[in-house]
Amino acid sequence: MDAITSLSVEQLKELQKDLQEQYNSYKARNLSLDMSRGKPSGEQLDLSNKMFDVKVDYITQDGIDARNYGILDGVLEVKNLFSDLLQIPEEQMIIGGNSSLNMMYDTIGRCFLFGTGGCMPWSKLPKVKFLCPAPGYDRHFTVTQEFGIEMIPIPMTAEGPDMDLVEQLVLEDDTIKGIWCVPLYSNPQGICYSKETVKRLASMKTAAKDFRIMWDNAYGVHYVYKKHELEDILKAAKESGNENRVFYFFSTSKITFPGSGVALMASSPENISDIKKHMGAQTIGHDKLNQLRTLQFFKNAQGILEHMDILAKALRPKFDIVLNTLQRELEGTGLAFWTNPDGGYFVAVDTLEGCAKETVALAKEAGVILTSAGATYPYGNDPKDTNIRIAPSYPTCEELQVAMDLFCLCVKLAGVNKLLEMK
Amino acid sequence: MDAITSLSVEQLKELQKDLQEQYNSYKARNLSLDMSRGKPSGEQLDLSNKMFDVKVDYITQDGIDARNYGILDGVLEVKNLFSDLLQIPEEQMIIGGNSSLNMMYDTIGRCFLFGTGGCMPWSKLPKVKFLCPAPGYDRHFTVTQEFGIEMIPIPMTAEGPDMDLVEQLVLEDDTIKGIWCVPLYSNPQGICYSKETVKRLASMKTAAKDFRIMWDNAYGVHYVYKKHELEDILKAAKESGNENRVFYFFSTSKITFPGSGVALMASSPENISDIKKHMGAQTIGHDKLNQLRTLQFFKNAQGILEHMDILAKALRPKFDIVLNTLQRELEGTGLAFWTNPDGGYFVAVDTLEGCAKETVALAKEAGVILTSAGATYPYGNDPKDTNIRIAPSYPTCEELQVAMDLFCLCVKLAGVNKLLEMK
Repeated sequence: MDAITSLSVEQLKELQKDLQEQYNSYKARNLSLDMSRGKPSGEQLDLSNKMFDVKVDYITQDGIDARNYGILDGVLEVKNLFSDLLQIPEEQMIIGGNSSLNMMYDTIGRCFLFGTGGCMPWSKLPKVKFLCPAPGYDRHFTVTQEFGIEMIPIPMTAEGPDMDLVEQLVLEDDTIKGIWCVPLYSNPQGICYSKETVKRLASMKTAAKDFRIMWDNAYGVHYVYKKHELEDILKAAKESGNENRVFYFFSTSKITFPGSGVALMASSPENISDIKKHMGAQTIGHDKLNQLRTLQFFKNAQGILEHMDILAKALRPKFDIVLNTLQRELEGTGLAFWTNPDGGYFVAVDTLEGCAKETVALAKEAGVILTSAGATYPYGNDPKDTNIRIAPSYPTCEELQVAMDLFCLCVKLAGVNKLLEMK
Repeated sequence: MDAITSLSVEQLKELQKDLQEQYNSYKARNLSLDMSRGKPSGEQLDLSNKMFDVKVDYITQDGIDARNYGILDGVLEVKNLFSDLLQIPEEQMIIGGNSSLNMMYDTIGRCFLFGTGGCMPWSKLPKVKFLCPAPGYDRHFTVTQEFGIEMIPIPMTAEGPDMDLVEQLVLEDDTIKGIWCVPLYSNPQGICYSKETVKRLASMKTAAKDFRIMWDNAYGVHYVYKKHELEDILKAAKESGNENRVFYFFSTSKITFPGSGVALMASSPENISDIKKHMGAQTIGHDKLNQLRTLQFFKNAQGILEHMDILAKALRPKFDIVLNTLQRELEGTGLAFWTNPDGGYFVAVDTLEGCAKETVALAKEAGVILTSAGATYPYGNDPKDTNIRIAPSYPTCEELQVAMDLFCLCVKLAGVNKLLEMK
């Protein structure tokens, strides 16, 4: 396709008229589709329905009755399962409740209330800042904002956050206490952090002694097209003498049932011991029966990996629709840019500058809800107004095809409108 | 039995020798029994095992797929269940995860980080104090201590905390921000707060605008011998113009499976709205499948009440053993005082002054673990060293009888030793 960006005013006006007519006919169809969140579809959830048949064997391997109180940090054989899956030593792991987000929130909450690494509680400091690779996950930014942390957006590269900038900032500013990372199939771009990026994060010098990496490995086994290896950041941090730097998070929310899965965190032995001390005041323990239900459903790490093959196969046609439609409708137009993710839950599309909000608004007016433009940036503020997150997982393939056709039309219409405005 | 306290030195010495011989023969039996925690027994948990057969119907009454993300504050029909059970309006309720203790911790955490009722966050204040009716629940005191709150013990009466003292303190000291209450079958004494006590708590004038009552109705339906009615504190607080004063907590931990139950909290609409705002940053929602599993197991509030009849029947023989043995061995000796609880999980025994620690140590040396002496007081400090919490639920009846025989012997031996010391 010819680049639309190089058309004359006259050609653009003609195209605008044509696009507007197509858009009007979509509006007449009274669509009602939601592509706003990274939710699995009902059909995908059905693939885990055998979970409901698991009659939990509630006596643990070491003879503990899991129906009763106790075991603050999780059932040992469930730790074994995740240790095998993620190569994290059991003794550096805490199994939590149903939400890794909740574990992240609590982790930052503890840093505020009690401090970490023997340093001053963050609530006592006049200013706390976090680096926020962006586009990123809106709920991370919501947590940071909740605690009044100032967010500094960091541009993403194909290998992860812009490490030159990260290294410079953390070295010069001791109020920068952390960074959010989704290292595999990042939300929303599907970027996998390179070995080099992980090593630089683990080893860089930071002005703050209690600088922390919030390592949200949300899509650790969630490939769609191709499995990527992730460098072991806990090991890399230890080798660099920064053992306490990393808080690692994972959950089965998008493996079995979102909201009824099992979350976990991992960190250095010192951090884990400190966290358990506070957790011991917070709770007697998390839901061990659901931990065992998850283990008994999968049997072992291989069981999870095989299940992820099934989920990847179920998600692939949806990603195909998104990527094929983008290619067919927008490739070469100069109006949109995207990368093809190998896994995760999203495709991120960048429109022309100043067109993301209008694109989302146009889609909404025609009955397709997208993630709000700006949501992928701290404070909901995408400075160039270009980034849109597409979540293919929830709609059916038929719905998704219609939604993507409309989406591409909206990108073009918004783009053409913008080009005419600028002429 | 004659009061041992009125014996002569010679008689005491003779008794001491006799008791010591009995004690030595217990020691020779190498007992190993744990009466330290309010844990249900395996047999009691078996009474809920049909929970494992519930194949969760995961579509809610309003058509929401509970396997997926969403519903921050709990499934509506599950709120209905607890609303019927506890007479709390659904719109004033939040269903949480598996632990009401965790909800209490988080509630105090929010008061520290964000404040409550529009007041200054407690973390910004030089001093925060809580009233701690004592003897009370050690885990409450652990939470308070975790946040650096100064704890002021308040004596208990047969109607609840000493309200004259409570009213005086909260009126004169605006750093007193809260009080812990277990209003029905209190831990450990089994005291039920009178209507008058509840009304005074709800209506008293407090110097702190953000004074809060932590209303842990842990044993709300957990009678053993006799059901007691609890005055509606949310209503009483509202009627007194103190609607935001009460944080109410409840869970099914000791109804179904401890650690895999469903917890809830309730408060004024203003507080609930404020809490949901913060919870929305903390989590996408709690485990809805376990909420539905609980509902579908019980069907309705009547189902819970009938289940509590079964549990009461199972617990009664154990309480009988404790109370009968106390009566047979210690009544009239002048060495121990206790009240007969109508429900809950504990019997509290007061020894002679300065004898609780020795009694617990003697029992431990003979193989019976009791709750640490002092644990029922803030900072683990029972100023008179008299209070011992007996938890009858976990051991079998046979074990419990042996443990109680030994316990009473230890009370007598410690008491006689003390009497001789003082002569």
